[in-house]
Amino acid sequence: MTRGILDYDFGVQVDLYLLIKSATKGIASNGKPFLTLILQDQSGEIEAKLWDANEEDEKNYTAQSIVKIIGDIHNYRGKSQLKIRQIRRTGPSDSVKLEDFLETAPLSQEEMTSKLTQYIFDMKNPNIQRITRHLLKKHQKAFLEYPAATKNHHEFVSGLVYHVVSMLDLAKAIASLYPSLDKDLLYAGVILHDMGKVVELSGPISTTYTVEGNLLGHITIMVNEIGKAAEELGISGEEVLILKHLVLSHHGKAEWGSPKPPLIKEAEILHYIDNLDAKMNMLDRALERVKPGEFTERVFALDNRSFYKPIFHK
Amino acid sequence: MTRGILDYDFGVQVDLYLLIKSATKGIASNGKPFLTLILQDQSGEIEAKLWDANEEDEKNYTAQSIVKIIGDIHNYRGKSQLKIRQIRRTGPSDSVKLEDFLETAPLSQEEMTSKLTQYIFDMKNPNIQRITRHLLKKHQKAFLEYPAATKNHHEFVSGLVYHVVSMLDLAKAIASLYPSLDKDLLYAGVILHDMGKVVELSGPISTTYTVEGNLLGHITIMVNEIGKAAEELGISGEEVLILKHLVLSHHGKAEWGSPKPPLIKEAEILHYIDNLDAKMNMLDRALERVKPGEFTERVFALDNRSFYKPIFHK
Amino acid sequence: MTRGILDYDFGVQVDLYLLIKSATKGIASNGKPFLTLILQDQSGEIEAKLWDANEEDEKNYTAQSIVKIIGDIHNYRGKSQLKIRQIRRTGPSDSVKLEDFLETAPLSQEEMTSKLTQYIFDMKNPNIQRITRHLLKKHQKAFLEYPAATKNHHEFVSGLVYHVVSMLDLAKAIASLYPSLDKDLLYAGVILHDMGKVVELSGPISTTYTVEGNLLGHITIMVNEIGKAAEELGISGEEVLILKHLVLSHHGKAEWGSPKPPLIKEAEILHYIDNLDAKMNMLDRALERVKPGEFTERVFALDNRSFYKPIFHK
Amino acid sequence: MTRGILDYDFGVQVDLYLLIKSATKGIASNGKPFLTLILQDQSGEIEAKLWDANEEDEKNYTAQSIVKIIGDIHNYRGKSQLKIRQIRRTGPSDSVKLEDFLETAPLSQEEMTSKLTQYIFDMKNPNIQRITRHLLKKHQKAFLEYPAATKNHHEFVSGLVYHVVSMLDLAKAIASLYPSLDKDLLYAGVILHDMGKVVELSGPISTTYTVEGNLLGHITIMVNEIGKAAEELGISGEEVLILKHLVLSHHGKAEWGSPKPPLIKEAEILHYIDNLDAKMNMLDRALERVKPGEFTERVFALDNRSFYKPIFHK
Amino acid sequence: MTRGILDYDFGVQVDLYLLIKSATKGIASNGKPFLTLILQDQSGEIEAKLWDANEEDEKNYTAQSIVKIIGDIHNYRGKSQLKIRQIRRTGPSDSVKLEDFLETAPLSQEEMTSKLTQYIFDMKNPNIQRITRHLLKKHQKAFLEYPAATKNHHEFVSGLVYHVVSMLDLAKAIASLYPSLDKDLLYAGVILHDMGKVVELSGPISTTYTVEGNLLGHITIMVNEIGKAAEELGISGEEVLILKHLVLSHHGKAEWGSPKPPLIKEAEILHYIDNLDAKMNMLDRALERVKPGEFTERVFALDNRSFYKPIFHK
Amino acid sequence: MTRGILDYDFGVQVDLYLLIKSATKGIASNGKPFLTLILQDQSGEIEAKLWDANEEDEKNYTAQSIVKIIGDIHNYRGKSQLKIRQIRRTGPSDSVKLEDFLETAPLSQEEMTSKLTQYIFDMKNPNIQRITRHLLKKHQKAFLEYPAATKNHHEFVSGLVYHVVSMLDLAKAIASLYPSLDKDLLYAGVILHDMGKVVELSGPISTTYTVEGNLLGHITIMVNEIGKAAEELGISGEEVLILKHLVLSHHGKAEWGSPKPPLIKEAEILHYIDNLDAKMNMLDRALERVKPGEFTERVFALDNRSFYKPIFHK
Repeated sequence: MTRGILDYDFGVQVDLYLLIKSATKGIASNGKPFLTLILQDQSGEIEAKLWDANEEDEKNYTAQSIVKIIGDIHNYRGKSQLKIRQIRRTGPSDSVKLEDFLETAPLSQEEMTSKLTQYIFDMKNPNIQRITRHLLKKHQKAFLEYPAATKNHHEFVSGLVYHVVSMLDLAKAIASLYPSLDKDLLYAGVILHDMGKVVELSGPISTTYTVEGNLLGHITIMVNEIGKAAEELGISGEEVLILKHLVLSHHGKAEWGSPKPPLIKEAEILHYIDNLDAKMNMLDRALERVKPGEFTERVFALDNRSFYKPIFHK
Repeated sequence: MTRGILDYDFGVQVDLYLLIKSATKGIASNGKPFLTLILQDQSGEIEAKLWDANEEDEKNYTAQSIVKIIGDIHNYRGKSQLKIRQIRRTGPSDSVKLEDFLETAPLSQEEMTSKLTQYIFDMKNPNIQRITRHLLKKHQKAFLEYPAATKNHHEFVSGLVYHVVSMLDLAKAIASLYPSLDKDLLYAGVILHDMGKVVELSGPISTTYTVEGNLLGHITIMVNEIGKAAEELGISGEEVLILKHLVLSHHGKAEWGSPKPPLIKEAEILHYIDNLDAKMNMLDRALERVKPGEFTERVFALDNRSFYKPIFHK
Repeated sequence: MTRGILDYDFGVQVDLYLLIKSATKGIASNGKPFLTLILQDQSGEIEAKLWDANEEDEKNYTAQSIVKIIGDIHNYRGKSQLKIRQIRRTGPSDSVKLEDFLETAPLSQEEMTSKLTQYIFDMKNPNIQRITRHLLKKHQKAFLEYPAATKNHHEFVSGLVYHVVSMLDLAKAIASLYPSLDKDLLYAGVILHDMGKVVELSGPISTTYTVEGNLLGHITIMVNEIGKAAEELGISGEEVLILKHLVLSHHGKAEWGSPKPPLIKEAEILHYIDNLDAKMNMLDRALERVKPGEFTERVFALDNRSFYKPIFHK
Repeated sequence: MTRGILDYDFGVQVDLYLLIKSATKGIASNGKPFLTLILQDQSGEIEAKLWDANEEDEKNYTAQSIVKIIGDIHNYRGKSQLKIRQIRRTGPSDSVKLEDFLETAPLSQEEMTSKLTQYIFDMKNPNIQRITRHLLKKHQKAFLEYPAATKNHHEFVSGLVYHVVSMLDLAKAIASLYPSLDKDLLYAGVILHDMGKVVELSGPISTTYTVEGNLLGHITIMVNEIGKAAEELGISGEEVLILKHLVLSHHGKAEWGSPKPPLIKEAEILHYIDNLDAKMNMLDRALERVKPGEFTERVFALDNRSFYKPIFHK
Repeated sequence: MTRGILDYDFGVQVDLYLLIKSATKGIASNGKPFLTLILQDQSGEIEAKLWDANEEDEKNYTAQSIVKIIGDIHNYRGKSQLKIRQIRRTGPSDSVKLEDFLETAPLSQEEMTSKLTQYIFDMKNPNIQRITRHLLKKHQKAFLEYPAATKNHHEFVSGLVYHVVSMLDLAKAIASLYPSLDKDLLYAGVILHDMGKVVELSGPISTTYTVEGNLLGHITIMVNEIGKAAEELGISGEEVLILKHLVLSHHGKAEWGSPKPPLIKEAEILHYIDNLDAKMNMLDRALERVKPGEFTERVFALDNRSFYKPIFHK
Repeated sequence: MTRGILDYDFGVQVDLYLLIKSATKGIASNGKPFLTLILQDQSGEIEAKLWDANEEDEKNYTAQSIVKIIGDIHNYRGKSQLKIRQIRRTGPSDSVKLEDFLETAPLSQEEMTSKLTQYIFDMKNPNIQRITRHLLKKHQKAFLEYPAATKNHHEFVSGLVYHVVSMLDLAKAIASLYPSLDKDLLYAGVILHDMGKVVELSGPISTTYTVEGNLLGHITIMVNEIGKAAEELGISGEEVLILKHLVLSHHGKAEWGSPKPPLIKEAEILHYIDNLDAKMNMLDRALERVKPGEFTERVFALDNRSFYKPIFHK
């Protein structure tokens, strides 16, 4: 992996391409406008101020454009900040492209598609299998590209499917230790549980919530989708109800967004698998950034805890 | 109204017809079987023990059968109990029928249907009007017969539609005081909000939850129904999303079963109207049973409070 | 209505009178003092910085003084800010007066007084009527001028009485649908419930809490007032106790400031009417500021929700 | 102290006088009426069943009457029960009186009155002193007789004043260690904090809540009393407000019944002293009943904990 | 497996050996003593009443004795009850033994010991390995016999070690999917996390809490044990602190008994593995007792939920 | 006491020595680095900005160094700020020492040691006495120097022992009023309850949490210490268990960090004494800074309340 913006020490001068994630105008105490730029590459984000910004600057340096910057990394309240010496917008001659600056899943879409296909193939109940396959096919493109969330965990390109694929492997391992579990339900539950996010969220980059996402949420959206799929496929067994329930209850409690708590064994386990994979992802990302003997930054979605990396984990 | 089983004083001997709501077998300390009968008429319920019950008794005295009883009302821990002297199962010659023993709404189904029709007629937005009319027509029979709940409030035959009709009148009164409210949304929200109960509950008498009711709940069921209706009618405007949201959010908070809180003004007001009508119903029923200067029994669904009836309310 | 400070677009130059709501001194990074001014007219508030403020500026530009300003509206983190070009304190020749800059209720004090009088006239129970009339008369001047709160809802001149008058109309409409309600209690409860705010709050403008407001609160203050009124009028029936209870319980729950929850039917309904009118006021104010298809700012007193204005509400 | 009903072992036959605390009629499984009697003496309460009770029994054995009983103590689910062999109602010739069967405070009313007088005498601030003395005088008879509660702690004759006197001694000890505390406020707060119970509760025996107690509560009642006292005495200083606040806030938190939390140092300490004395009372009573090495019964008002008595505390 | 007491239908007459789990004396309404016996075999428990019990019965039929019973299974409020026709205490000639009536883990102690040995053998960090081996050896006998709890999950002979062995397999499977996890810490955490229960609980049968268990709890007990072990072995690295933390935090939250939440990645995962295995155990046991299409009894430790067994799970 | 940095009015020029508590580098809007200095003396802390700071400044003005400053006190958002005119690092010739700038307990270490000795001497139970004396001796140096916390209460040099000594006096006063209390347990509990802070915290100045403090906490650390002490002294009575329980439970509830709530009378009282002394300390410190008739700043550890100082407390 090449060196990213977060891999430099304080005090170092850098000369590199970065993607503008967001640009906000402000007025400095001397009365002149300035731009606060959030810049990113695959290693993460850094803030920079562009002082005395004129109107042309405002037009040039907008979200989703790529810039070339010479500047210095310094320390602002314990966080990296970039002090800009030179900045220019890139053109075709720079031969850089958007994808180079976005974080993506560690597996390719092909690898993940093939895994999904295999798990669906392994299902024995035809009703469950057909509904799952139908919905995956219907939403396939977005499902392979969307992040799992706007923040907290798997918030990168293809994060949604990567989360699903990790959960499938976990489901398989658990089901082999507890043979009373219905594998078909577990696999289908894993694949469908967050699929409604392809409607709830706006897309793979600069992700926000859609109006439908805000007013209904991905759980309700997906329960409807299962109903529609069953109707289109002419399937009416109890499997339809159970699949809806698996999606409906996967947040575990009413106050976490599931109007019904898990009332099926596989629904309870699905909730656990979801949580466990999300937590592993958050923990790994937080711990990657500190050295043995240090505590991580507080992780909001893990009850605001700060985790310790043991010294003997060198 | 004729005198009901709860209208007699302690110590009085009665001779009347009653409906068996439930019958449960037990073994007395002398080793002999007995039946605990919950008996009802339109005034309410009373418990009775049938001691030394033989097998024939068990077959005769089952739920939903009507009996003729001679017995005494006495006081058991502050509640009425019926001590049976004579009991027999009724036959055709008794000319009593089931409906005579069930509590029903104070308005007839015809009156309520006509009110519903008028409110739908008053809607101006054709999308909202058509979806509401379509769903009312689809579920009309059950909607007119079901209770609003198995307990707590409007738990009587036609309780659901009676609750809806009261709420419509309240919605109209409020909308005329706050003209910024969208009447169409309010009326549609009121009519649809609990309609999923015709799937969630088992029917108008001896009401229980269906499996679908337990695993999905009336809110999710109804959101799906709105989606289906819109599709069948070929309606795709934002009204569909808003109607779904009205139903989805009408419990007000995630911990009360709404995965999204009200995020539309009319959704917030719908939640209030629903609550206000339910509470008035519970308060009136609890206060009817006590005299001025007394406190009611604790009402579980009203935070277990015991309400006072002022002395000057004679 | 004339154009207010919040009605201009970003980038526009304005020349207008504004009232200074508050002025706070700071030290800029160049070591020089500056003033942060919160300026207001009837449309709302805007922030402005007065850089390099000297001692005379500090004396001139204080809270409650009116200034003439030429400046530019610009956008700071999504909120309007005013960049001052010229500023001067107004004098008699400007012929502007305080009231022109304060938000007031949409009804005149006369209209509202007449409504209050009518509702009291309609009461049938003489004890309730006399106590209500006595207390209204005692606190009339402040009651007609005070806001209902320092923020959240009805936080404008005469906001308290406007809130009461809206609630009275609502109480009347509800009582006509639920005839078991005691109208006298409802009307008296509405008129008295927040009257203690004339002691709890400091006055109609730049409103803060008094020491008595902080240490006792408007509920306790008003319960005492009812007791005193009854004594002065020589009234001793149960009505006194019930009126005290209506005021005492109107926040609905101990954790919301009512040491006793509503234990009278009308007390429960009073709590609902209070809430409903307050919420309608907050919702209307929040939604007025956005266009169809947008979400409002988060409203703290409505559980920090952000409300959506449907697109078809054009 | 003579031997009480709770001091006998299981299996023992007893012959003694007892007070009937309550008598409730039931119907046995053989269809015959029986009475459940709660019998008490100063050591506590015991339950007894009077089988086959006739009408004369019902009239004879009512609450507050004293009976002579011969019977056997036996063990019913770990609790003592009294099996009646013979029972008769007492008459004048038995020379027993009500007080002999009621638990009372360990100090006499005279001793406690003298302590109260001394503490009031020690106050330096005349406003605080006069209000406290005035209110004590006004309610003196009931204040000396009432319990502090219907259950949980100090639920015996003169329990209220005994609780106050213990708290005064504690207040004095604490104030001498933390000299910044205002002794006058502490003493007055202690004496007045629960005085409203003389209106909230029905009296020293068979204590229940009055309607005023239910609808207003002792805190609100007493805040009003302080206001009235100040008016009658022509006192208007800030001391009146502070005394009201001390009473108002002594439950510590809104959810525990104080609409305002303590906002004065002495109010915070008063809350602590109240709690500490109540807890010591509950702990001592629970621990008295077990032997070293045992756990007490669960104490509901102490978070349902069961306390251990160390073995080395012999 | 032979037929157990819970495997018979209502109405059937049985003739079999049962273990008395507990025997409690009561007094019937006819004034005669009776015994309530809780009887058990490996299939579960059933209640029986022995009416008109004399003193000899009381001595014969005590907890932990085995009886031969002829009686009838009947239905009491939906639960099985045993109506005794004949009962006698067993003697040597019956050749029955205690173990035959106790539920035990499905794996033998030998199998489980061998699994534990292998997992410890697989550890790479010598400090972690030595401490774990030392403590296992120290408590081995009890560790192999104790249940994991007095109720809720794994409440059978050898339940503790069975829970641990299942968790080890789960830990291995998860660690192979998330290679950043430290296997040594996970395995040691699993083996040690509940080992303190051998002090907290009284033993493998009729299990209760010891005084030390009540006052300190198994977590604190075990943290001390790790400290002592490290000292005895002369180990002082950070591993000691981390092992203590794993045990200390394994309940996940302060309110669940862990004074520190997990602050190490493996501690967080240990908490999950513990929960998942416990829940699988409870779910399987609850679902075993119902047929497809039915709901289980409410499971208190699973938020009092009632779980559904899908019809297609035949 | 000499005048401290917080004793000057706004606008005054000062010339004095101060200790740098912390120094943080930032970049001003003109692109130049600056230092934010938190400066302190025994009266408290003040913030100052050192603009245009060069590299030498960064090296000179670091935490724990003492500086001589000439500057002006001004008001920044209601808080004092120091505007630096001249600053220089002190050298030996300034004859100032670290201790002069640190807040310390109002009693000397000798006085407090002597009090501790006396209380231990007064103990009657030899096991309790020996363990307490042993542990005090083992940790004596740190115990006499450490603060009781990093913030909130007793956060000054020797704050820990000062808190303990105040609590001992309080324990003695309370025990003399409630003679059923075991003084030995109370005294030992007070002395040991927070002693684990000498391991949990880093030291008497610039106090932070150690890794062991973060992962185990002072309660668990101290429970282990008691176990070790008992072993070393060969003491094995129940006193060891009870002392552990006193320390374990002194935070009162699981959610406040005590895995077991107090289950011994003296443990419950210890929790109260701890709270009361901590609150008195916080209240006195907050109230010292305001004048009669004013409210204090909000005190986070007292539920964020703002306390009022009565006007008649002049």
